[in-house]
Amino acid sequence: MPMPEALPDATLARLFREARTHNAIGGEVDDATLRALYDLLKFGPTEANACPARFVFVRSPEAKARLAPALSDGNRDKTLAAPVTVIVGHDLAFYDKLPVLFPHTDARSWFAGSDQARLERVGLRGSSMQGAYLILAARALGLDCGPMSGFDNAMVDAAFFAGTSIRSNILVNLGHGDPAQLFPRSPRLSFDEAARIE
Amino acid sequence: MPMPEALPDATLARLFREARTHNAIGGEVDDATLRALYDLLKFGPTEANACPARFVFVRSPEAKARLAPALSDGNRDKTLAAPVTVIVGHDLAFYDKLPVLFPHTDARSWFAGSDQARLERVGLRGSSMQGAYLILAARALGLDCGPMSGFDNAMVDAAFFAGTSIRSNILVNLGHGDPAQLFPRSPRLSFDEAARIE
Repeated sequence: MPMPEALPDATLARLFREARTHNAIGGEVDDATLRALYDLLKFGPTEANACPARFVFVRSPEAKARLAPALSDGNRDKTLAAPVTVIVGHDLAFYDKLPVLFPHTDARSWFAGSDQARLERVGLRGSSMQGAYLILAARALGLDCGPMSGFDNAMVDAAFFAGTSIRSNILVNLGHGDPAQLFPRSPRLSFDEAARIE
Repeated sequence: MPMPEALPDATLARLFREARTHNAIGGEVDDATLRALYDLLKFGPTEANACPARFVFVRSPEAKARLAPALSDGNRDKTLAAPVTVIVGHDLAFYDKLPVLFPHTDARSWFAGSDQARLERVGLRGSSMQGAYLILAARALGLDCGPMSGFDNAMVDAAFFAGTSIRSNILVNLGHGDPAQLFPRSPRLSFDEAARIE
């Protein structure tokens, strides 16, 4: 069977080459779109299929008001103006889902009782990968993204994950970006600065 | 300006719905393809555009032999058979590139001198996101992927990153997967198990 061709150039441009982190994001994002987004990103691979990421789609004015105090000054106004802000976190007790997610062996025992540092590492790795899948799935659906790390994780955890084993990782504004309010694209490392072939 | 339409269903299937983690990966992957892959994934967003991931494309028999002892038993044969195995790591001194990557302010000072735990966290988050971009960019180019966490990180670091501040994160086999040797797809969490709208 021959390998499939690369996707068309316009698709590669939308997903990667011309996609940008947007600052001014407006429009509306309905429940059906958020569910369609999840139904794509959920298929991205994670360690032992543990799918540790948990998502809060912050959309109502009340929920945005709970998020606001945790945002850095530079991220507050644009986040309050975006139609949806996704909190991407990870459940440190992700292993409790493994009997369902990895049913052919006792994968729960690989992680349950591990020290906190290992659970943090597996959780952070997985929710970061799933956050990246969310960004690319959103672009595939025609949405623009504004991902951010500039916020107080402990405040977000207290406001949205109190009494749980879920910890926040990144935030992603979602909606329709205004290209007129983009900054120029920042440089990237050349192949030889970031990679080598052995 | 109207929002763009979603990409065609066949594209969403290739990238997400029908994409699989492959075990039996063959074929050949040339330098031009690896450079094209990097030239897509490099555009994915990272915190402060720090682009902390570093990539070693392990392709020669000699380099594969250096990787082999670090692999878990279940991952060894399939990894040695794959045309390329990517080591995705992150440079804990990623901040030294920020004067180039984030030139409009002194972003280096946000990270230089931070404690090791914070640098590990930012590096791991970024290289995990960039590993996810690599997986989706590979699928966009027509390649199949076999990502793995089952290996000894310290052994990989000693074999490929000795004397540097780079630490391994995940491995990804790349090439042409044999669909006949796929396991059935494992379940995913429902929207309501993993997400909520507020």
